[in-house]
Amino acid sequence: MELEQCLRLRRDTRHFMKDDVPETVLKKALAAAHCAPSVGLSEPWRFVVIRNQQTKAILKQSFLKLRAKAEANLASEEDKIKLHKSLKLEAIEDAPIGLAVFCEYPKESYTIGTIWTDETLKWSCVCAIQNLWLSLTEQGYSAGWVSILDYDQLKQVLCVPDDWEALGYLCIGKPATDYDGQPMLQKVGWKQRCSEPVVIYR
Amino acid sequence: MELEQCLRLRRDTRHFMKDDVPETVLKKALAAAHCAPSVGLSEPWRFVVIRNQQTKAILKQSFLKLRAKAEANLASEEDKIKLHKSLKLEAIEDAPIGLAVFCEYPKESYTIGTIWTDETLKWSCVCAIQNLWLSLTEQGYSAGWVSILDYDQLKQVLCVPDDWEALGYLCIGKPATDYDGQPMLQKVGWKQRCSEPVVIYR
Repeated sequence: MELEQCLRLRRDTRHFMKDDVPETVLKKALAAAHCAPSVGLSEPWRFVVIRNQQTKAILKQSFLKLRAKAEANLASEEDKIKLHKSLKLEAIEDAPIGLAVFCEYPKESYTIGTIWTDETLKWSCVCAIQNLWLSLTEQGYSAGWVSILDYDQLKQVLCVPDDWEALGYLCIGKPATDYDGQPMLQKVGWKQRCSEPVVIYR
Repeated sequence: MELEQCLRLRRDTRHFMKDDVPETVLKKALAAAHCAPSVGLSEPWRFVVIRNQQTKAILKQSFLKLRAKAEANLASEEDKIKLHKSLKLEAIEDAPIGLAVFCEYPKESYTIGTIWTDETLKWSCVCAIQNLWLSLTEQGYSAGWVSILDYDQLKQVLCVPDDWEALGYLCIGKPATDYDGQPMLQKVGWKQRCSEPVVIYR
């Protein structure tokens, strides 16, 4: 698929078909992720593939708890809370695959490009996530990035090393809808996209 | 260009030709950036295009100062410091365009997906950067992400609002080399790529 088409088709998906994700599709998407740029050639991205329903059930509870907390904060805005409660914001138990993404901090004493902030390591992982997302789109699959999660619990449940930092949990599968070619949050009336990015010339 | 080819050709470029970057190329790359996913449909990416040589000269000084600091920390490792000093880690003054990327924190009281960490806003901006990078690659151009910079000074020099947070400075132009199809840091012997990403199954 041409890059441009792929960029436009990519969606943050919360509604999936039951179809499984073949290992070949996942492998290709992970290879795409591994092509990402990384600060100081650190390649700090780490992936955990989750197919176990029990693990997903625990993470679903973590999501529900945090979502309730968000809604408690919204309590003064009645219209918003009603719409918020109706939104499908994850597909942890319905998507055939979960993919948790972590950043492993380098063991080496010096990594080029981390002197102002070592957040650049996490940003490298995000580049990898975007590559993976585009590759899934090209292959007819999609992802939904769930960030309403207790990231400490995510680490604990998946038994990953202490020095890995969580970036999120991607629900992966065959999309059941493309939301009419727009972000889901726009389709359901939560928010409108801006037609143009903000660009300043100096 | 096919997505896969584009992912493989994309390089972090530090060596550019003198050729200018046509406005149409930049516009197309910024449109690609604007297709990125964003947490809660926040679209928080902000771009500042820099063509002014004086501004670039100030930022080059900022780079040199921070690079010297990094090398001072390396002082005990003689071999490493010699190689480090020989590395070309930016092209601020030689690349025809500089593009500073910022995250603007939303004014709205609640943004979906920021309850565990509002770093997700910056991560949305990184997705936009990766899209832009791929689009430049497709169009025969490239970018080099400079993160060895005083990000506070970057904000100050470019007179951007206080609530914008800097993610980096991209040098953009026509690449003078593709480093034989590998990361520059591998070609010069600083570090080797890993052949495979780390993937765990749970």
